[in-house]
Amino acid sequence: MHNYTAGPPAEEILPRVARLQSALQKADFDAALIVQNTDLYYFSGTSQQGWLYIPAEGEALLMVYKEFERARAESPLEQIVSLVSPKKIPGTLEDYGHRLPGKLGMELDVLPANLYLQFSSIFGCSVDDISLSIRLIRAVKSPFEIERMRFAAALADKVAARVPEILEPGKAEITAAGEIEAYARSLGHQGIVRMRLFGGELFYGHLLSGAAAAVPSYLASPTGGEGASELTGQGAGFKKMERGEMVLVDYVFAHNGYICDHARIFALGDLPAELYKAHDAMLVIQEKTASWAVPGAVCGDIYQRMLDAAAECGYGDTFMGVGERKIRFTGHGVGLELDEFPFIAQNQKLELAENMIIALEPKVILPGLGVAGIENTQLVTAAGLQSLSRFADAIHTVSD
Amino acid sequence: MHNYTAGPPAEEILPRVARLQSALQKADFDAALIVQNTDLYYFSGTSQQGWLYIPAEGEALLMVYKEFERARAESPLEQIVSLVSPKKIPGTLEDYGHRLPGKLGMELDVLPANLYLQFSSIFGCSVDDISLSIRLIRAVKSPFEIERMRFAAALADKVAARVPEILEPGKAEITAAGEIEAYARSLGHQGIVRMRLFGGELFYGHLLSGAAAAVPSYLASPTGGEGASELTGQGAGFKKMERGEMVLVDYVFAHNGYICDHARIFALGDLPAELYKAHDAMLVIQEKTASWAVPGAVCGDIYQRMLDAAAECGYGDTFMGVGERKIRFTGHGVGLELDEFPFIAQNQKLELAENMIIALEPKVILPGLGVAGIENTQLVTAAGLQSLSRFADAIHTVSD
Repeated sequence: MHNYTAGPPAEEILPRVARLQSALQKADFDAALIVQNTDLYYFSGTSQQGWLYIPAEGEALLMVYKEFERARAESPLEQIVSLVSPKKIPGTLEDYGHRLPGKLGMELDVLPANLYLQFSSIFGCSVDDISLSIRLIRAVKSPFEIERMRFAAALADKVAARVPEILEPGKAEITAAGEIEAYARSLGHQGIVRMRLFGGELFYGHLLSGAAAAVPSYLASPTGGEGASELTGQGAGFKKMERGEMVLVDYVFAHNGYICDHARIFALGDLPAELYKAHDAMLVIQEKTASWAVPGAVCGDIYQRMLDAAAECGYGDTFMGVGERKIRFTGHGVGLELDEFPFIAQNQKLELAENMIIALEPKVILPGLGVAGIENTQLVTAAGLQSLSRFADAIHTVSD
Repeated sequence: MHNYTAGPPAEEILPRVARLQSALQKADFDAALIVQNTDLYYFSGTSQQGWLYIPAEGEALLMVYKEFERARAESPLEQIVSLVSPKKIPGTLEDYGHRLPGKLGMELDVLPANLYLQFSSIFGCSVDDISLSIRLIRAVKSPFEIERMRFAAALADKVAARVPEILEPGKAEITAAGEIEAYARSLGHQGIVRMRLFGGELFYGHLLSGAAAAVPSYLASPTGGEGASELTGQGAGFKKMERGEMVLVDYVFAHNGYICDHARIFALGDLPAELYKAHDAMLVIQEKTASWAVPGAVCGDIYQRMLDAAAECGYGDTFMGVGERKIRFTGHGVGLELDEFPFIAQNQKLELAENMIIALEPKVILPGLGVAGIENTQLVTAAGLQSLSRFADAIHTVSD
């Protein structure tokens, strides 16, 4: 009846499944049952709701709750079946020749407790966490994924280039935000930005101006902002931008699943010298980090070197937040979700690998003045970080 | 340092806490530990991250991870403390004179399994689900909440009134969506729309045109749409709207926490007669339901009567979706989240109560033609449903 677009091809999906199977074998799992929406898409090529059974050996079986025909059209997997209740999973697995698992892996980092208890009872076996393996696999991007992320990055640049036409003194942050967002939508922004962290949420990103840009929030991010709502108090608010203020446009472009995280500082006229100085210091840290962040480098070490470099320039107390409000990371993996592995964060033992993609965001919070710094989505190559963005990193002055 | 806005006053928050305490006592819980962002805001008046301990008797204690000063400014609770790790919760409770619970209630419908296991180990006691009680309390709105929802409804009407200026043949759905969204933002739309269901997500809502409006998706909703992305395949896509097509604008206005869900059909010129006929039938069902949905009415019965009424007009197979793709509800509670109690759904035993607010959405999916029907956010009163919206329900023709 409908013409559905096919998702990623079998050559993209099947190696992902095989990588998870290796991880299952190594950790002595009999199988994984994937239920989270992003992981489902990653391993099946469709976002339709259901349960994806991946045995440690053998063929994956996608059981679809909604919408079956669409899943069949989108996914390159061979075995796809319509199923209305999780209670029928064990019987269906047996129909397809699977022995029921003795040890089952599920995404216990995101699976709600009630569902965890339900699946434990349905399977009557040990259900353990497999999310770490999934996140490690997803951290390393394929050429297919890198291509999509380059495309998202080009669109993020295009949005940044439009920003100076939209910002002006006297306009409310939220009005400017809406205009930027409308332009992003016309370029194909998918709207929804997914985070994996419990309670994590983001709407496009943060457009913040002047002193209000330094307002901290509940979000695991160096910037917060008053926001437009008590419930979701982050990002653009009703404050009017003023001449002489900085405006942070830290926006995510999410295109066909993949995310580019991108922040630039715009100046409504001349800014206090301290902001330019701080911004330059952040660009130097970004450049240094690009050479430190090579395959094999330990994420916690990179984090510490960035902190040390910030302290050397006098930003020890304001780098990535003020005092106790400091966020304990300077970068995070991006891909289908905004908060992927690796985290350039305190005590992280994970080593960088080629083709990981991280959003590196050295930022300084200057109470009373706002925010300075940068964020670019960067590919880990043998020679260090390579930014996917082209839009200049300097503070951009918006002319009257 | 910053001027934070105060959240809802103590007269609003304390009775909510007291209602949960009654529920705890009835179900023999010693206490609840609230961790989900929306529930935290509901019971504390702040959205800052943390853990809210509500003993069955005594004073609530809000332990804040991020951001403490902001939480203190926003919340009217008396006892607020800064805390960096959940492991320190039991010690902190003892410092504040609490005996540790033998039976603790948590939101097991949303709490990730890993956190559930962590809290079970931290408390060393039985951790059971308290989400049903929380959702029942939240389902009945206070005058403060009804006032906020009326305000959101007025803004939703304002957006609908602007839609005819934005829709035009030849424009892509996603471009029109962005323009509508920008206008909503300028009116103060908070952007983020929260859903409680695992995997549930929505970006503003669905702008869908012509036959593409009948495309089903993974979302628990009568409409889906191709969407702009394989990952988040719902809502507006790249299709261009054409003369002679219907356009569904089913948009949520989320203002200062509270949601109005609002759908209208717009016509780009004359539509096939079948769409007008189906739309009129849905308006009749809406009107009938308004008189059935009185306090004490059982939600499953209302659902069945709506189904019967649809079948009588010949829409038995297309009401709320086609065949197996039919969604098994015709309305849902709204408030801080889009999918609140009560659900006007199959087999729902819950009885309506005065001051519940539901989004009632009788809709017909007509493959090849699109969607007809309506959605209004309605208050349950002694006399039945009272719509919070004023914008006319009929199909609106967009003139050239």
